[in-house]
Amino acid sequence: MTAIAYETVQLPDNALPLLIPMSEVAGRMSIHEGSKYLERENKGRGILLGGVPGVDPGHVVIIGGGVVGANAAKMAIGTGASVTLLDINLSRLRYLDDIYGGRLKTLMSNRVNLTESLRTADLVIGATLIPGARAPKLITREMLSLMMPGSVIVDVGIDQGGVVETSRPTTHSDPIYIVDDIVHYCVANMPGAVARTSTFALTNATFPYALELANKGFNHAFQENPALAKGLNVFNGHITHPAVANALDMEYVSLNKILN
Amino acid sequence: MTAIAYETVQLPDNALPLLIPMSEVAGRMSIHEGSKYLERENKGRGILLGGVPGVDPGHVVIIGGGVVGANAAKMAIGTGASVTLLDINLSRLRYLDDIYGGRLKTLMSNRVNLTESLRTADLVIGATLIPGARAPKLITREMLSLMMPGSVIVDVGIDQGGVVETSRPTTHSDPIYIVDDIVHYCVANMPGAVARTSTFALTNATFPYALELANKGFNHAFQENPALAKGLNVFNGHITHPAVANALDMEYVSLNKILN
Amino acid sequence: MTAIAYETVQLPDNALPLLIPMSEVAGRMSIHEGSKYLERENKGRGILLGGVPGVDPGHVVIIGGGVVGANAAKMAIGTGASVTLLDINLSRLRYLDDIYGGRLKTLMSNRVNLTESLRTADLVIGATLIPGARAPKLITREMLSLMMPGSVIVDVGIDQGGVVETSRPTTHSDPIYIVDDIVHYCVANMPGAVARTSTFALTNATFPYALELANKGFNHAFQENPALAKGLNVFNGHITHPAVANALDMEYVSLNKILN
Amino acid sequence: MTAIAYETVQLPDNALPLLIPMSEVAGRMSIHEGSKYLERENKGRGILLGGVPGVDPGHVVIIGGGVVGANAAKMAIGTGASVTLLDINLSRLRYLDDIYGGRLKTLMSNRVNLTESLRTADLVIGATLIPGARAPKLITREMLSLMMPGSVIVDVGIDQGGVVETSRPTTHSDPIYIVDDIVHYCVANMPGAVARTSTFALTNATFPYALELANKGFNHAFQENPALAKGLNVFNGHITHPAVANALDMEYVSLNKILN
Amino acid sequence: MTAIAYETVQLPDNALPLLIPMSEVAGRMSIHEGSKYLERENKGRGILLGGVPGVDPGHVVIIGGGVVGANAAKMAIGTGASVTLLDINLSRLRYLDDIYGGRLKTLMSNRVNLTESLRTADLVIGATLIPGARAPKLITREMLSLMMPGSVIVDVGIDQGGVVETSRPTTHSDPIYIVDDIVHYCVANMPGAVARTSTFALTNATFPYALELANKGFNHAFQENPALAKGLNVFNGHITHPAVANALDMEYVSLNKILN
Amino acid sequence: MTAIAYETVQLPDNALPLLIPMSEVAGRMSIHEGSKYLERENKGRGILLGGVPGVDPGHVVIIGGGVVGANAAKMAIGTGASVTLLDINLSRLRYLDDIYGGRLKTLMSNRVNLTESLRTADLVIGATLIPGARAPKLITREMLSLMMPGSVIVDVGIDQGGVVETSRPTTHSDPIYIVDDIVHYCVANMPGAVARTSTFALTNATFPYALELANKGFNHAFQENPALAKGLNVFNGHITHPAVANALDMEYVSLNKILN
Repeated sequence: MTAIAYETVQLPDNALPLLIPMSEVAGRMSIHEGSKYLERENKGRGILLGGVPGVDPGHVVIIGGGVVGANAAKMAIGTGASVTLLDINLSRLRYLDDIYGGRLKTLMSNRVNLTESLRTADLVIGATLIPGARAPKLITREMLSLMMPGSVIVDVGIDQGGVVETSRPTTHSDPIYIVDDIVHYCVANMPGAVARTSTFALTNATFPYALELANKGFNHAFQENPALAKGLNVFNGHITHPAVANALDMEYVSLNKILN
Repeated sequence: MTAIAYETVQLPDNALPLLIPMSEVAGRMSIHEGSKYLERENKGRGILLGGVPGVDPGHVVIIGGGVVGANAAKMAIGTGASVTLLDINLSRLRYLDDIYGGRLKTLMSNRVNLTESLRTADLVIGATLIPGARAPKLITREMLSLMMPGSVIVDVGIDQGGVVETSRPTTHSDPIYIVDDIVHYCVANMPGAVARTSTFALTNATFPYALELANKGFNHAFQENPALAKGLNVFNGHITHPAVANALDMEYVSLNKILN
Repeated sequence: MTAIAYETVQLPDNALPLLIPMSEVAGRMSIHEGSKYLERENKGRGILLGGVPGVDPGHVVIIGGGVVGANAAKMAIGTGASVTLLDINLSRLRYLDDIYGGRLKTLMSNRVNLTESLRTADLVIGATLIPGARAPKLITREMLSLMMPGSVIVDVGIDQGGVVETSRPTTHSDPIYIVDDIVHYCVANMPGAVARTSTFALTNATFPYALELANKGFNHAFQENPALAKGLNVFNGHITHPAVANALDMEYVSLNKILN
Repeated sequence: MTAIAYETVQLPDNALPLLIPMSEVAGRMSIHEGSKYLERENKGRGILLGGVPGVDPGHVVIIGGGVVGANAAKMAIGTGASVTLLDINLSRLRYLDDIYGGRLKTLMSNRVNLTESLRTADLVIGATLIPGARAPKLITREMLSLMMPGSVIVDVGIDQGGVVETSRPTTHSDPIYIVDDIVHYCVANMPGAVARTSTFALTNATFPYALELANKGFNHAFQENPALAKGLNVFNGHITHPAVANALDMEYVSLNKILN
Repeated sequence: MTAIAYETVQLPDNALPLLIPMSEVAGRMSIHEGSKYLERENKGRGILLGGVPGVDPGHVVIIGGGVVGANAAKMAIGTGASVTLLDINLSRLRYLDDIYGGRLKTLMSNRVNLTESLRTADLVIGATLIPGARAPKLITREMLSLMMPGSVIVDVGIDQGGVVETSRPTTHSDPIYIVDDIVHYCVANMPGAVARTSTFALTNATFPYALELANKGFNHAFQENPALAKGLNVFNGHITHPAVANALDMEYVSLNKILN
Repeated sequence: MTAIAYETVQLPDNALPLLIPMSEVAGRMSIHEGSKYLERENKGRGILLGGVPGVDPGHVVIIGGGVVGANAAKMAIGTGASVTLLDINLSRLRYLDDIYGGRLKTLMSNRVNLTESLRTADLVIGATLIPGARAPKLITREMLSLMMPGSVIVDVGIDQGGVVETSRPTTHSDPIYIVDDIVHYCVANMPGAVARTSTFALTNATFPYALELANKGFNHAFQENPALAKGLNVFNGHITHPAVANALDMEYVSLNKILN
């Protein structure tokens, strides 16, 4: 058996090229979902994100400025909401400020800024993903009490645990639940809802790797494309990824050793 | 009894100032609803309106460029979708072209343009409201067959009959139904879902009239504010609006006659 | 003596064409002045209106959406600040929302919205001008206590009394004073500071009237241009403007009577 | 003889700094040329790229998102056309999506997307340049039949063969020809038409290298600036570029050998 | 015989609804034509309107801010050029400033501003149309000497004489000529070149009138639609338009007289 | 004693992360200061940077496109001024052109372009900082005579000598002086004026380093974070930065030597 895991294919700059498309989809979707569950029928505050002329727009707070967060910001800005994005990476915030200028309020992510932002938030997007690790629980249950009843949290990274202490995975058929008057949307596989877009997005990213494997064969492909080599978990039955071997308590064999 | 009807208060330029706020809310909401019901779980095509880089965005077709249509366009543009708006009023299209430039494709509304637009539409917004009259059935059942299965129609003007032959009013708790593979969203009172925003929006528009009535008393207010006078349906028990008198087959008494 | 007053020349739509240019200049300047007096050296809060990536931008609250307010909004948006504009004219707010979209938060002007806005304001622009009347004192001394110490008020309409109870006219050489820890900038003739721009702006507006007077002579010009006729205060020594005659307790003679 | 070739000066990130300026010029020009040859007089479809309010704009399809393609996109967007750009580099598409948002439809370049795009294209820009290699013939003669008669192809990379099977170099004095009802514009040195802009653009890029050569002398300049060293083809009569030596079947001498 | 002239159909606000579409087309085209004839091959300065990063863009000067001028501005801005627009209508300039902000320099049209603008102009668009009258010759032959050799004038209003003393009508097959080193483009029927777009644009505007005539018959249509009545030149053989009767020295019969 | 200098902490890409925040603040402030000192009261030309509709806006010339210059450009564009930015780094100019499009004129920095730009400049921003070195005196005293009397220079980099020959440091309490009719604003610590914003900005950048030092202790922190190691000037009393040792003529000890 030879197995490649999407989530371990990794470019030299540490980007995970096969995860980006689903992060883009989920980030953009998160605002659509949030605006839906802000409706009264869905237990939300009854807020239209963009407001209308003369009426205050909603406030969207996005925690994390990576692929998910930046795509959420793009959609939130498009609704006309007030949008705040927090991240600890100043150079990323500078890029987002270049792109969105005064349309996006960027804040250093720390406890004070997060707490202040939650007080006026109608919609919070959890968008902090740490590759290969659990996201930190930035929003504790206690902090829910700062938020307005009926406000909504969309915890996009629920697959890796989420950034909200009270998050637990839900499904498209039963997507929300309420804790302390706050609506939680924590669907585990968000992109599945827009299957057509997601399929094209994922294929765009994966197909070039499939083609390279088909054209070159395994050995050459792994030797010439380090991103693909990093993605390899099992090669001819040997565990070739140290973390996987470690997690399963099995023997690790380096790819180089096999190839030579 | 003295009764004023929101829908007959009318400014000199024929605008209906007490209906505009709810049209703004419904127009903006229509895109949120449409994007939600495009999801697979909701029988839609599984399309993310904005697409992602490398994947075709969705196509939104808005029929009518009045308050509802222009607000729908603003939100649709915000999602990153391809947006086409049809209207028969060229001067309105020119204004929208000034505001949105290349982000909005404006088309003269006629059978050819409408038919062509439907063929590639993922989301159709019915936004044609004719004050005091039924909207024309611009989309016949036959035309549904031109559309892609799983595409969505949000018929905003359903309160006045809607522009789609197959539309019938639905509710927030059971908002959609399927005809010929097309998802119909025809909630009769859309703004009710975002009650908080809608209440402020409506109050902003109505309060100045209430204040004027309170400050001046009925007689002076009706004499000095013709918009308010147009809104008056019953004054001291007399029917003062000719259309209402006619519809109920009761006697019409002119306001002037009563006031003098 | 024949005298025409700039401030009474009036178009059929009630616009005051010879006052607009100075309102444009003052509205745009107001943000430059406000940003200057927010500096610590000038007793302000030490806030940069646009913030920087990672740091909260300043909040600008503009009271009034006419010529002054809309021009102030344009500049405030340009700095990257969060900008809120209040007005009682919904149709004006809708136009500004079309132009500035999510970059400008428009609010119905009422006591609740104004009070809430003041609490987080770094810079308040008084931009409410009522032609020929004192502006209402929308900000009372008591309300200053809601504001943050070191925040700044630029009361553009100080020539007509201003909208702030604690405003009194100042000069370019001594432009500010402090009341209850709030910096007041109330220079009576703001456009004088940018004399070059103001001169061109004013000349652009006045020259066509001067030309018309020169080409046609007084009698024809007043007969053919009602805006000019409204501007006429004294004609051949007779007071031809009723309000002026009234204010000075002198005899009023109608222009028509003189011309015939 | 010592000779440096513009097209082999290369930065560490593989960019060709002396070719970029002409790619920028050609990319931007391509839309002007295309809009001109869409006119009836020039055998085109008689389409105004931006349309007018109420009339469908033209569709521009750009093949390649490098320097040429991104600059073509910028101009095409400026005309108000519907613009689609195809590339196989997702990370480049993401950057363009950040910059142009919903104004640019980005698609993964593959046969399906290209074919679909051609069907509705009024103007196709060939913008795929592969440094030092022939561009692939992405548009075959057969595919011309998918396109609408009178549509226009501007094949910017004609100097390196172009991406269209039916392309052959033309001149500014006789720039177009027709194959299968499709107008082909394939001028070999497009930037020559805007000589003034091109001269400044090229000088901006080349002058710093010339200055470095003048200040340091050949030996030091080549040793200290690897980009310049890569550009060196002949040094004191020796062929120092392996590909050139190979192409001419002459002896290759490494620069290092000469310098030491 | 009954004849309606497109150019005399006139709305209550003096707009000429059947001329607007061709003005829109010509205004937008004017920038495409100008950019083409700025090329060296066409005797122009060899300037790319948008420049490239590091190189000065071209300067476009548009004389007149009506339909032609505003549409030319939209396209010129799209190219990335520096754009200046002159008009004598301040309220029109204010609207354009709202729409285009800092992207368009608006100037009061007077001799000083025009002269200064011409000195640095690469492309001048003559866009001053006075309904039913010859446009004034704002650019005299003498003023050509202020302009840079190789700069281009596109005199859009040539059908009504143009605004340039040295303009004379040309054709699509021989569109330009040179006077004093300045390229003159004065094609009399510019929209003919983009026949497809123009046909749709014109039909959009004219069809509703044709429909009204067909549905109501002549008498009712003229009675109920004053814009159409103004367009009527000949009714049952009688000259019903005073200016036409006057120009042809024939008897004028009022429409009212015939209808009664 | 162990001392870390903000200005020598340096990332692998040579960025100085602890200096960037103050450069951002100073760059943005520079336009506010410039617009203030263009007022007549402050000896300036009496120009409003944004002009008003019908009146020429001011011209801002920014020398340098790094952090200071790009932030100055963002603010200058926000005022509606005409903005020109000069830099010798074409790839930086291309990025700025992507972000700001036609709103920013980018020019290669050379003597011709600089000289031409100064002739029409109302406001010049000196924004050329060379890490660890004196900025070149790009504007000589002689060149001041090219500028219009009353125009303003804000020399942001005055701390490192500034780019103007006639610059000398000033203070917030006495910020300007006049040389050859040109207003010089050369406050040495500009960000001090907006202390609140600056404190947050600086803390955002420095706090992560402080945290790392606290968590890991000196030895580990310096070993694991090369940026921090570069910032170390004195370690346990030894001079560990060669330039510092050299400047003070003291003994240099390498960090590695101490740590081992």
